[in-house]
Amino acid sequence: MAVSTRERITGILSPVVTPFKADLSPDPERLVKQCRWLMSQDVGLAVFGTNSEANSLSVEEKVELLDKLIAGGVNPKRMMPGTGSCALTDSVRLTTHAVKLGCAGVLMLPPFYYKGVSDEGLFRNFAEVIERVGDSKLRIYLYNIPPVSQVAISVQLIERLLGAYPNIIAGVKDSSGDWNNTKAYLDNFAGHAFDVFPGSETFLLQGLRNGGAGCISATANVNPAAIARLYATWSSDDADAQHARLNEIRGIFAHYPMIPALKAVVAHYSNDPSWATVRPPLVELTAEQKTSLIGELDRVGFTMPGVEQY
Amino acid sequence: MAVSTRERITGILSPVVTPFKADLSPDPERLVKQCRWLMSQDVGLAVFGTNSEANSLSVEEKVELLDKLIAGGVNPKRMMPGTGSCALTDSVRLTTHAVKLGCAGVLMLPPFYYKGVSDEGLFRNFAEVIERVGDSKLRIYLYNIPPVSQVAISVQLIERLLGAYPNIIAGVKDSSGDWNNTKAYLDNFAGHAFDVFPGSETFLLQGLRNGGAGCISATANVNPAAIARLYATWSSDDADAQHARLNEIRGIFAHYPMIPALKAVVAHYSNDPSWATVRPPLVELTAEQKTSLIGELDRVGFTMPGVEQY
Repeated sequence: MAVSTRERITGILSPVVTPFKADLSPDPERLVKQCRWLMSQDVGLAVFGTNSEANSLSVEEKVELLDKLIAGGVNPKRMMPGTGSCALTDSVRLTTHAVKLGCAGVLMLPPFYYKGVSDEGLFRNFAEVIERVGDSKLRIYLYNIPPVSQVAISVQLIERLLGAYPNIIAGVKDSSGDWNNTKAYLDNFAGHAFDVFPGSETFLLQGLRNGGAGCISATANVNPAAIARLYATWSSDDADAQHARLNEIRGIFAHYPMIPALKAVVAHYSNDPSWATVRPPLVELTAEQKTSLIGELDRVGFTMPGVEQY
Repeated sequence: MAVSTRERITGILSPVVTPFKADLSPDPERLVKQCRWLMSQDVGLAVFGTNSEANSLSVEEKVELLDKLIAGGVNPKRMMPGTGSCALTDSVRLTTHAVKLGCAGVLMLPPFYYKGVSDEGLFRNFAEVIERVGDSKLRIYLYNIPPVSQVAISVQLIERLLGAYPNIIAGVKDSSGDWNNTKAYLDNFAGHAFDVFPGSETFLLQGLRNGGAGCISATANVNPAAIARLYATWSSDDADAQHARLNEIRGIFAHYPMIPALKAVVAHYSNDPSWATVRPPLVELTAEQKTSLIGELDRVGFTMPGVEQY
């Protein structure tokens, strides 16, 4: 292919959890610190993902947070903010701002209120966003997360979008949790200047062995270095052992609601209880859940190196 | 009960379809005309409902449209705009604006991105909106539409909200399509200063016979007078015959995607083809679908009296 992917963002990205103040407003200062720590662990920043409670934030709040991240020294070349909204005009506004700030790409949900929409309607949505943003520096990573959005990104849709916008449509994050679906993306598009990121480290190794570009994973918020190490050394002899260890940690989180669990763990290991705050409709872990989660993590020797040094 | 419902908005409301210009921006002028026509047919205005493509509009666009409706002479006492968003801050902003403008009430979706959320989380969302709006004139109609939102409003949640905010929580629109669910709302809350609106005229008569307050229905966009007549005369001898005729018309729409079909019909009977425009991810009817739909309506003698006289 004519299109070079060498300057594209790849590897491990974290859908960075969003810290809130007591009044439930986002806290840019702590978010900057968390992003800096994640970058120090070789992890990129998919801010405003599902695990960031991004859809519980207004577009204004996200624009302001992006500005403050850049002002706080976070490198936009390591950022892939989520910008896909139900409303076309919201997607355009946030995407335009991300491109203006120099973000490496954007992770774009399809509009997710209406269900059973056609690929034609989804194509028109993404095409309209691309035309309105009107910037050749835009790189879109489509976000397939049918368990939450209920609106899937089909192989046919990707094919059509790539045909129309080969330099803009840069990849996909697949949070379907279905390896067959990730494999279909890889089989059809890997090597065609289209980067496939599985939605968790559970499929990182399998993905890399089939042409994947890394992964974007909830647990990269709390276990970044180990996940980044597997990415960096996936062809080494101990790759399967590393993979098993990552799954052991991730498996513990599977016993709890993911976002409150991630925030409880950041709160615990950073000695900052306010990190546990979530916006409605989410609810923080109960004291019992928190004790049980930290206990499980302790028993397997889990740590968050460097996170206390905020 | 101590709370009077006599001044509450009741009867038939239309989730008013939103007209778009060629550039997909909302057209306030045609929306004002459509709202005036609906009011002339004794139908209230649930603008920004599911059928209004409200979730395809930004909060800014909705604030501006509300302002222009009021400036255009639409009576806020006949309005129940949809104001529930995924983001707490968006719900607060639009709800505050609707109350400031004197709207009779607001129709509030639960946050709908995250699935499987708890009643505790939903309670916190609605409570936080109520506290932040902080206006005793606020009247909230909860919007239960699990086939689309995937997040349901349970009897237990209503009970808890009514207990905490008896003067604010004013009713529910039930678009579950499940009479047993509507009946559960009626059995538990009708007569307790809580108005239950089934989400279509299919359940209007059954609702009224069980203490319902009217209905909020997609097809009230195109068949308002006949639906309003059944509401006004539901205890008359011909009520069941009226009901059967309403179902005949609604049944025709069931063969097509509802929102594009409503807009195609408004476009046809008002001789204004631009009414057919929808925002992505929706797609307008094909020429074949449109011909077939209008043909079906012609065959049963459907008309839209007054709609040509814009």
